[in-house]
Amino acid sequence: MYDHVKGVRDFYPDEMRARRRVIDSLEAVARRYGFREIGTPAIEGADLYIDKSGEEIVDELYSFEDKGGRRLALTPELTPTVARMIVAKQQELAKPIKWFSTRPFWRYEQVQQGRYREFYQLNADIFGSGAPEADAEVLAFAADALTDLGLGSEDFEFRVSHRDILGGLLESIDPGVRTTEAIRAVDKREKIETAEYYDLLEAAGLDREGAREFDAVLSAGDVGEVRSFADTDWVDEAVSNLEAVLAAAEDFGVGEYLTLSLDTARGLDYYTGVVFECFDSTGEVSRSVFGGGRYDDLIESVGGQPTPAVGVAPGLAPLGLLLKRAGVWPDDPIETDYYVLRVGDAEEVRTQAARITRELRSRGHVTETDVSGRSFGAQMGYADSIGAETVVVVGEQDLADGVVTVKEMESGDQTTAPVESFPGEGDRPTYGTFADDS
Amino acid sequence: MYDHVKGVRDFYPDEMRARRRVIDSLEAVARRYGFREIGTPAIEGADLYIDKSGEEIVDELYSFEDKGGRRLALTPELTPTVARMIVAKQQELAKPIKWFSTRPFWRYEQVQQGRYREFYQLNADIFGSGAPEADAEVLAFAADALTDLGLGSEDFEFRVSHRDILGGLLESIDPGVRTTEAIRAVDKREKIETAEYYDLLEAAGLDREGAREFDAVLSAGDVGEVRSFADTDWVDEAVSNLEAVLAAAEDFGVGEYLTLSLDTARGLDYYTGVVFECFDSTGEVSRSVFGGGRYDDLIESVGGQPTPAVGVAPGLAPLGLLLKRAGVWPDDPIETDYYVLRVGDAEEVRTQAARITRELRSRGHVTETDVSGRSFGAQMGYADSIGAETVVVVGEQDLADGVVTVKEMESGDQTTAPVESFPGEGDRPTYGTFADDS
Repeated sequence: MYDHVKGVRDFYPDEMRARRRVIDSLEAVARRYGFREIGTPAIEGADLYIDKSGEEIVDELYSFEDKGGRRLALTPELTPTVARMIVAKQQELAKPIKWFSTRPFWRYEQVQQGRYREFYQLNADIFGSGAPEADAEVLAFAADALTDLGLGSEDFEFRVSHRDILGGLLESIDPGVRTTEAIRAVDKREKIETAEYYDLLEAAGLDREGAREFDAVLSAGDVGEVRSFADTDWVDEAVSNLEAVLAAAEDFGVGEYLTLSLDTARGLDYYTGVVFECFDSTGEVSRSVFGGGRYDDLIESVGGQPTPAVGVAPGLAPLGLLLKRAGVWPDDPIETDYYVLRVGDAEEVRTQAARITRELRSRGHVTETDVSGRSFGAQMGYADSIGAETVVVVGEQDLADGVVTVKEMESGDQTTAPVESFPGEGDRPTYGTFADDS
Repeated sequence: MYDHVKGVRDFYPDEMRARRRVIDSLEAVARRYGFREIGTPAIEGADLYIDKSGEEIVDELYSFEDKGGRRLALTPELTPTVARMIVAKQQELAKPIKWFSTRPFWRYEQVQQGRYREFYQLNADIFGSGAPEADAEVLAFAADALTDLGLGSEDFEFRVSHRDILGGLLESIDPGVRTTEAIRAVDKREKIETAEYYDLLEAAGLDREGAREFDAVLSAGDVGEVRSFADTDWVDEAVSNLEAVLAAAEDFGVGEYLTLSLDTARGLDYYTGVVFECFDSTGEVSRSVFGGGRYDDLIESVGGQPTPAVGVAPGLAPLGLLLKRAGVWPDDPIETDYYVLRVGDAEEVRTQAARITRELRSRGHVTETDVSGRSFGAQMGYADSIGAETVVVVGEQDLADGVVTVKEMESGDQTTAPVESFPGEGDRPTYGTFADDS
């Protein structure tokens, strides 16, 4: 017997139905924000990721050589791919470019709750605007996506920070510090011991005293204090930008979901401005649910013209943990509008059952019929197992009387309907349609 | 500058919109037939494909070792994966099992028109019924899927055959023939020279005279002739089964799309019964568009209980060729319900524009607004480029008069609406709503 590969999942219809509802809901919100769907390949040249993403991603890359000797990788994230696509058509695309897609990605990492080697994300990005309104629109989209799924401000918060506040603070403490390395340390802070955190900051070039100052200012979380502590234009502008984003998000009506949190950093190296992470307000889901932010240098780094960019990428698995914790995971039971039950194999029975099935389907109703030559009882059992609302029984004796039997499965009530007028003119004939007539 | 990998494609919004409409249409038909969606991994252990699929597929496998030393493969087709999933839950699943999914697959093959190394298919399969009605339901689904996309019997035909007719015929000519190899030759017949075809049949164990007889009977395409030529129970049953499938498909109303075509074979080794391929009736698309058939032994071969199965897998790229040839590829232009145009940066303008945007979006309308701080003209140009139906202009002067301007983009007509009642109670306020009032 074969098993699936470690870290990937099979989704049977029950679970897939819920996932599809979540994806449909997320995508509906993305569409009404004017994000347009794109389709992207699962494989890229491995060099697209080297130096562009955080070390974490490169270490976790599924990479291999194809039969033509090309070094390929399974895409671990979408951003480098969309950056490549924008560079390829930079002249033709009207700005702002607003794109979304939902698809799997792959990283060879430790499998744990809500984290798999194959994982699904919706990515939504805006390219071509460096204005605070673009950051705010991404935040508003993300908040609406969650509230449309039934979550409220008691369920989640977005912790918002700014890369240049971190970078500017570090520079003001010690201009020689390796900023990228220090910011990676900040990103790991919640997951490691304090001593290890300080060790990482020192490894990035801060001395012990500088590390303490840095940590104290971040933890205080007061932008006024940050401004006066650093006292540089760089930090001043970063704080102003962050404030403008928060104000624009307030205009969009999503201010209540935002919390200023200066020690939020995001793991990827390419972020340049506002960054944010979504957390479970109750703390039951202990990790970041998803995140996003601004990455103004990436398009240029893959060969394009300077193009500001900001995006967010909710992942289905961690989002599922949050939705389940909040009791709004949409796991409704399977539903079927009609089961057309065929009694026996007489020519007339076969023909009428097939005709009725075909006509119900052509009206868009989910309709099943016997494809196994089974008994009445076996078919009833199956109709029940698929949650059929109405069963239409087509039998030789009934047909001799010119009728079919229409059975409401929930109540068990049944009546007959003239076969020549079934399904008839009404869009969705049920037991009630014909019981009322009689 | 980076490029995509050879044989994969980037889909920009214009093309993706058409593809999404095709996928949505195919999936809507699958759902109303009662197929339930599943989700499946992109990677499998490579051993799942060795010996289970045709040699063609194994030769074209993208396979590689992961960091844990496992031999993995990018899935080249869905069938072995669903077979594995059924085996894993054989006891729990109510039969018939009817599953569908749409996703990419990967094969390292020659890139040509309508054929890529990364390609998308919808797979729909029925497990647990060996009855002709199951084959017929798959044929009916495939035909409805095409007619719902706007194709008719003048556009496509399904060429239907039966593996056991081929196998039984071969056995009746020479019991020592290697059937699988000979059937592969039949599958290649249209693509190769006659001499090469005969060589392949002889390599499979037929002598020249036997190959001639076999070819003559197949080409005649008359099941009565096949029956009397072979004169074995095996062929007799296969012909009866094929006739029953065609009759059941006739009941389902799709008989007009079916053509008996005994030399249709399908490339995969695991088919066991009825097989079919969809062709462009005009011949302009010269290759098979997609195909399907019965594969009753596969579940058992991957470790399960004997479980009959039948399915079909339309691929988006070849289907796209057919839809374009027939002039029904759904490439409508981009559409946007509203663009909310912000004139200037006054507090009141920002707040009202954001509020109007938010309210229009909350009603489900596709709504964009300025995220770049651009001029009136630049915003109008962008609104036009995204096909905005209505532009709502929010400016300081208008607001001082208590109004916003509502502009119909197609006609250029515009009027004002009171800001306190915009968007108001109506679901979808447009120019007409307010012009009528005045």
